[in-house]
Amino acid sequence: MDATPVWFMRQAGRYMAEYRALREKHDLLTLCRTPDLAVEVTLQPIRALGVDAAILFSDLLLPLEPLGLPFHFAAGEGPVVDRPLRTRADVDALRRFEPRESLGYVLEAIRLLRRELSVPLIGFAGAPFTLASYAIEGGHSSHFTITKRLMYEDPDTWHRLAALLAEVVSDYLRAQVDAGAQALQLFDSWVGALDAGDYREFVLPHVQALFAGLRGCGVPLIHFGTGTGHLLALQREAGGDVIGVDWRTPLDEGWARAGDGVAVQGNLEPHALFAPRERLLARVDDVLARVRGRVGHVFNLGHGILPGTPVEQVRAVVEHVHASTASA
Amino acid sequence: MDATPVWFMRQAGRYMAEYRALREKHDLLTLCRTPDLAVEVTLQPIRALGVDAAILFSDLLLPLEPLGLPFHFAAGEGPVVDRPLRTRADVDALRRFEPRESLGYVLEAIRLLRRELSVPLIGFAGAPFTLASYAIEGGHSSHFTITKRLMYEDPDTWHRLAALLAEVVSDYLRAQVDAGAQALQLFDSWVGALDAGDYREFVLPHVQALFAGLRGCGVPLIHFGTGTGHLLALQREAGGDVIGVDWRTPLDEGWARAGDGVAVQGNLEPHALFAPRERLLARVDDVLARVRGRVGHVFNLGHGILPGTPVEQVRAVVEHVHASTASA
Repeated sequence: MDATPVWFMRQAGRYMAEYRALREKHDLLTLCRTPDLAVEVTLQPIRALGVDAAILFSDLLLPLEPLGLPFHFAAGEGPVVDRPLRTRADVDALRRFEPRESLGYVLEAIRLLRRELSVPLIGFAGAPFTLASYAIEGGHSSHFTITKRLMYEDPDTWHRLAALLAEVVSDYLRAQVDAGAQALQLFDSWVGALDAGDYREFVLPHVQALFAGLRGCGVPLIHFGTGTGHLLALQREAGGDVIGVDWRTPLDEGWARAGDGVAVQGNLEPHALFAPRERLLARVDDVLARVRGRVGHVFNLGHGILPGTPVEQVRAVVEHVHASTASA
Repeated sequence: MDATPVWFMRQAGRYMAEYRALREKHDLLTLCRTPDLAVEVTLQPIRALGVDAAILFSDLLLPLEPLGLPFHFAAGEGPVVDRPLRTRADVDALRRFEPRESLGYVLEAIRLLRRELSVPLIGFAGAPFTLASYAIEGGHSSHFTITKRLMYEDPDTWHRLAALLAEVVSDYLRAQVDAGAQALQLFDSWVGALDAGDYREFVLPHVQALFAGLRGCGVPLIHFGTGTGHLLALQREAGGDVIGVDWRTPLDEGWARAGDGVAVQGNLEPHALFAPRERLLARVDDVLARVRGRVGHVFNLGHGILPGTPVEQVRAVVEHVHASTASA
């Protein structure tokens, strides 16, 4: 058996000095929209960490602008959507777009990366609920109150929006594969705020349609969320070859809930990377022990690498996972 | 069988016009620190809703000031701790205090309320993890990064802090019972950010000590958190006669995880109160159906009432729960 593959969500980013040096010269969206810069940032962790896959450096919100929802990043505040979606008319004014035209810079970065990389390249996009929550709330949210109110008070408008997002994201991910992406991750980062009944009614059909649009694309599909311990069986039903498990759910329990015949990705607590080395590696060992010899585990964190994380700790995890799982 | 009892977390607050009228004249901490005003706010939902219990109007953070951690509320930003706890010296400088002296205004409000109320009065306090997270982060937090780093990097200091908070909160809750509180709720609102291993190591012993300090106090103890579907068995082990279940975990699953011989409280999705009446009551019926005839269910939301919630919807839930569960 080969060693368990390892990569990290946000393996490129602020915790790396090389990234911070580039960010002194360019803002986040410039990095995303300039293929040479997106390539450089994507490659930084490949050089530094010894991970087994690259993930395209990009931003979940890029599809919002060509849909008709411009946004910007406010200093220290995260994304701000200029005119958040609130009404049926707002939703009706959105437009499906051709990713080869509107997000061609992402696809160009993928093409350039394939020439540079010796490890597989993962493309990604945000799922309908997570994208809709940014579009509706206008940025990050704690409770998703406006999003949930739209669902409950005007389900037709919600379904119209979610269906459009599923189409757009499916087109966008397929274009990433056509450009050279060798795996895809769908980030439904915030869907854990919903209970199972709401997931089934308001999310499941749209994520199923999204994955149906990717059928036959020939690359592994990873389906990720946080706080979704109660939704893992439904996320499996929605689609994906690999189900992401966050750090709150022990990997073996998460795998049992996702069911047989699917791979799992996860699930080290991202803050463990701040712990003394002995505690950190004990937690890595705990994740690996919960695999119990099954095939189909991709080692990752339960969410993204946090700012301030020591790079040498991340590298130590990669080495430890490889050393612990390589066959003799 | 009597009808299922109903009360709501944050049943007093911004969603009520009577409360907003008082807030135009007094800031939040003045309402908490002036017994007559705290009494008035506590009574507002009793008059308006027909609920079966009152919960003292107060703030989780009040014990921080006599501990040596003054705080204020910044406009639109929530609580701000003036000098957040960061080091062992910061923790060593904290002082255990006598709640009858330092928080006497809370106890006076309880004594006054008992003369006015015909329903039981619930006292409350924040649990060690949740209080510590405010003290360490300096306010609300998304990831609890500084708190978790303290746990992992300096466990001795964490345990010293958590043990002190357990003592202080236990004293404070016992003083509330002595003043007349007829039930107590411990809010570990944010502990769901921890995995089970961290809960067992860093939280469980302190919550057990806290509940041990309340042994023999003679009132029901409610133990509440959000996002704790994965921790319910451990929260049960930590203590409490009633375990709170948030909206993400179906009530029957939550009860199964908490185990036999304990009551449960919950767990309507707070946003359901914005839904059209038919959808709202169907969700209430779903919660009640999951009780499956067992004894020991207290109807509540999965978290607090949200600002903007229509009062008549809250009242409709109370009436519906009573009508649906009263014996013929």
